[in-house]
Amino acid sequence: MTTLLLSLADWDPRRWLENLKAALPEDEVVATTPEGGFAGDPATLERVEYLLTWKPRPELFDSLPNLKAILSVGAGVDHLVDLPNLPDVPIARIVDPDLTTRMTEYVVWQVLHHVRLGPDYAALQKEKRWRPLYQPPAGKVTVGIMGLGVLGTASAKMLMQLGFRVVGWSRRPKIVAGVTAFAGEGERDAFLAETDILVCLLPDTPQTRGIIDGALISKLRKDGPLGGPVLINAGRGQSQNEADILSALREGTLRGASLDVFRTEPLPADSPMWNAPNLVITPHMASISNPHGLSPLIARQVRRGKAGKPLQYVVDRDAGY
Amino acid sequence: MTTLLLSLADWDPRRWLENLKAALPEDEVVATTPEGGFAGDPATLERVEYLLTWKPRPELFDSLPNLKAILSVGAGVDHLVDLPNLPDVPIARIVDPDLTTRMTEYVVWQVLHHVRLGPDYAALQKEKRWRPLYQPPAGKVTVGIMGLGVLGTASAKMLMQLGFRVVGWSRRPKIVAGVTAFAGEGERDAFLAETDILVCLLPDTPQTRGIIDGALISKLRKDGPLGGPVLINAGRGQSQNEADILSALREGTLRGASLDVFRTEPLPADSPMWNAPNLVITPHMASISNPHGLSPLIARQVRRGKAGKPLQYVVDRDAGY
Repeated sequence: MTTLLLSLADWDPRRWLENLKAALPEDEVVATTPEGGFAGDPATLERVEYLLTWKPRPELFDSLPNLKAILSVGAGVDHLVDLPNLPDVPIARIVDPDLTTRMTEYVVWQVLHHVRLGPDYAALQKEKRWRPLYQPPAGKVTVGIMGLGVLGTASAKMLMQLGFRVVGWSRRPKIVAGVTAFAGEGERDAFLAETDILVCLLPDTPQTRGIIDGALISKLRKDGPLGGPVLINAGRGQSQNEADILSALREGTLRGASLDVFRTEPLPADSPMWNAPNLVITPHMASISNPHGLSPLIARQVRRGKAGKPLQYVVDRDAGY
Repeated sequence: MTTLLLSLADWDPRRWLENLKAALPEDEVVATTPEGGFAGDPATLERVEYLLTWKPRPELFDSLPNLKAILSVGAGVDHLVDLPNLPDVPIARIVDPDLTTRMTEYVVWQVLHHVRLGPDYAALQKEKRWRPLYQPPAGKVTVGIMGLGVLGTASAKMLMQLGFRVVGWSRRPKIVAGVTAFAGEGERDAFLAETDILVCLLPDTPQTRGIIDGALISKLRKDGPLGGPVLINAGRGQSQNEADILSALREGTLRGASLDVFRTEPLPADSPMWNAPNLVITPHMASISNPHGLSPLIARQVRRGKAGKPLQYVVDRDAGY
């Protein structure tokens, strides 16, 4: 028997507790409150070997002397790796087929929305005007994916099936069949110069913070078939300079954008982003963890740990992802 | 040498002439005006063996004594088959890989737009509200395609790759791998009862006229994962009863709809459809014939005819498609 503690900031843990108890019937599963407190016997915390968490309070770790591993409830671990007193135990990310499917849906949806001129036709509908516009065929459009991990690779494959040309960029070299892949700082400008629609799926690391700024936007292909580049960010809000994106949309340097993430979430009601031209805003919904789908994957990790096997998808702490 | 006449109502024939002359360098290619008149020598019309057309004026046929075949510039031939003095020559449809790709893009785009709650998030954005909503996974949503021809089959395949369950209905029985196929009047209600998102790709025939009415809408699955059924029509406007669709949207019997076609096109500015709730209107742009892509296909048909071979994609006049 082992003990798994859930500490999920801002989330009601009930559905998670229910699903995880069912998935780990022989083990003890407990949870902090959404605010991070623990209502049960403090001795229980001493038994905790596995922590499933989203944005834990740093002081939580002081009360977990027997912690063996930390499981992040999301694909990103930026909410964890910078915490001051993080213990020296493996941190594993979630790689969930459902998260991958949902992200692919989102990327395909938003790429098609811009290629098929969704924002333009919505504006025409508001004016009650019937006007067919030129829409380039998929084969003439190059989608550039920043971040060729599990999510980026799955999105690239589906976009290629729809006929798009796909290029990719990642920090470390990656090979994805059919994708022209660029890597590292040195190849970034060449990647941007070919890109009509930039899809950002980067994790939040010191290297990616603020990477999508005016300078980067100005390097995207200008004479492409859409009459200007498009930005889609479904990675992390910390990657973007929102003032620069706003200017680029207003000036037309960007033809359009879809942002699912923001530096401050929820996006404040007084943000000027809400009514930026040709900007589609979604509330960090591209790919959401759900307890029913994730509990079996978490249970499998806990069972691997109990059996003395290394966990899957362990994060490289130095790289930050 | 043969003579090909273009008669394309409402379209400027210049780009078509240019592309077709390049594709048929040994033949004569001429065109009527967009209004249907012919400015050249009437003797030229006597030489015409092939007619490439969109909504021809019926009296045109009287001046074409040597016509061997009619090529429709679109996938549909409803603009032709009911003309009173249509000569007894083969009528061929266009089957264009680009038309198929564009239709698949449109169907995938609009299905995702409704499943990922695009209209809801657009409304929230207008109110500057950040609110993640429940979005069912693709695997829980059944897309029902009416019309399992080339376009319907291609759309079905891409939707299945995205994880959707697909059922289909057609007048005559069809087999498409992975698709539960229903056929004929007798199986239509069973098809509708399983359908969360109805995609209509039917041709305009006496049997399909007005088929999408209140009675049909009321038979769609009510307790599905989207909280109500969705309609997408990218076939022909004549298939729909627009007053019934409007009522269903207003009453909530339909959760949402996307219409690319209308009974009267352009949709008149005073139509109440323009601001129906949760309705996405596009101006018959789902799949558009373009001269550059189509000319080689038309040239191939003309060459088949000159070589005495039967044309491809010849229409069954009794069925009307």
